[in-house]
Amino acid sequence: MAAAAPPPPPTAVPVEALPETKLARHPLFCRIRLANPSDVPHIHKLIHQMAVFEHLTDQFTATESSLSSTLFRSQPFQSVTVFILEVSPKPFPESNFNPLYKPKVRILNLDHPIDDPEKETFKSEGDDVVVVGFALFVPNYSTFLGKPGFFVEDILVRECYRRKGFGKMLLTAVAKQAVEMGYGRVEWTVLDWNVNAIKFYEHMGAKVLQEWRICRLTGEALQAYGN
Amino acid sequence: MAAAAPPPPPTAVPVEALPETKLARHPLFCRIRLANPSDVPHIHKLIHQMAVFEHLTDQFTATESSLSSTLFRSQPFQSVTVFILEVSPKPFPESNFNPLYKPKVRILNLDHPIDDPEKETFKSEGDDVVVVGFALFVPNYSTFLGKPGFFVEDILVRECYRRKGFGKMLLTAVAKQAVEMGYGRVEWTVLDWNVNAIKFYEHMGAKVLQEWRICRLTGEALQAYGN
Repeated sequence: MAAAAPPPPPTAVPVEALPETKLARHPLFCRIRLANPSDVPHIHKLIHQMAVFEHLTDQFTATESSLSSTLFRSQPFQSVTVFILEVSPKPFPESNFNPLYKPKVRILNLDHPIDDPEKETFKSEGDDVVVVGFALFVPNYSTFLGKPGFFVEDILVRECYRRKGFGKMLLTAVAKQAVEMGYGRVEWTVLDWNVNAIKFYEHMGAKVLQEWRICRLTGEALQAYGN
Repeated sequence: MAAAAPPPPPTAVPVEALPETKLARHPLFCRIRLANPSDVPHIHKLIHQMAVFEHLTDQFTATESSLSSTLFRSQPFQSVTVFILEVSPKPFPESNFNPLYKPKVRILNLDHPIDDPEKETFKSEGDDVVVVGFALFVPNYSTFLGKPGFFVEDILVRECYRRKGFGKMLLTAVAKQAVEMGYGRVEWTVLDWNVNAIKFYEHMGAKVLQEWRICRLTGEALQAYGN
């Protein structure tokens, strides 16, 4: 299922297309790879940032331990799957990756370096690599198509990295994977007040389904069915 | 994960609690079991009925073949799982079932027999057993809880069997299974104009999330990411 590098988004410029003078400015190497168990502390912090952004910290009870015991329990893409997006000012070292997903690497050429106040917290590999965001998704199923799809539960880019094409990179990686697996759709949810996100998703080709509402049975109301 | 028989819903009366005179009226034996590949023709017809009910037949492209090749590819509850609900005027014959799910059987005592115009089409086992509905669900994941859950993609009871507690039986079976597996939530969607369904779901303990919208990338817009 490994694929050729995807086409660059509008904000990303492939290294070979740039005059050297431009390249010399602030190249930032970006990579999307499968998460592994050692990423759990970062994933936990990113989920917490998501809860803060959505004003839903009261619903946030996940711990590193609950994540460790429930993620990574199957082959990638068969159940919960996490893509990690990270950046480095230097080329990424060659690493051994899960053969089921070849990391996607591209280079952003920035006018200014990004000032990351949480750089130390999100260091990933050596001194240079920093985790910028993640996407967590699960297979779902469309009965109307008679095909599986992906549902993206979370997609997050840390605040200082926003509006640079990183969100698009993550969502593109999930969509590309769905197409390669012959899946019929990719779905996710958005808060109706998050107009920037809605515009972005529509620009990505998604339709926002206005008529559908999500029903949720959780907490004590769910536990009552165990008796 | 097999469980004791769940408590009867308000419309179902356990056989032992009824005086014989009442029992003699129109007992209907109801069973929820895991679907198997031989159920695909019925599942296909039920999904079509769902598309008709939702005024979405233009989105219905599933075939028996596409269902056969995408369902039943893993152990029950690990990916797409289908519960079949069927009824019989006589007790169900003892059968060999998947040890991962002990069928749930109960008895409804009806004032009048149900006139099923599609009885022949939905015959399931011998002359007496008829498929009444189904629920199709997949595991999902709550990052806020750090726990898996279930997402119910479809739940349908055929028209002549509605308003008798069958929908509740199906949803209860999914919720009960979630609790037994230690899962944190059960979710599904509803059309905002389907006020009867919304009332029913709220009565089941679910919250309807008013702020969230579903984003969907499918068809050509999705395929574009494959290049």
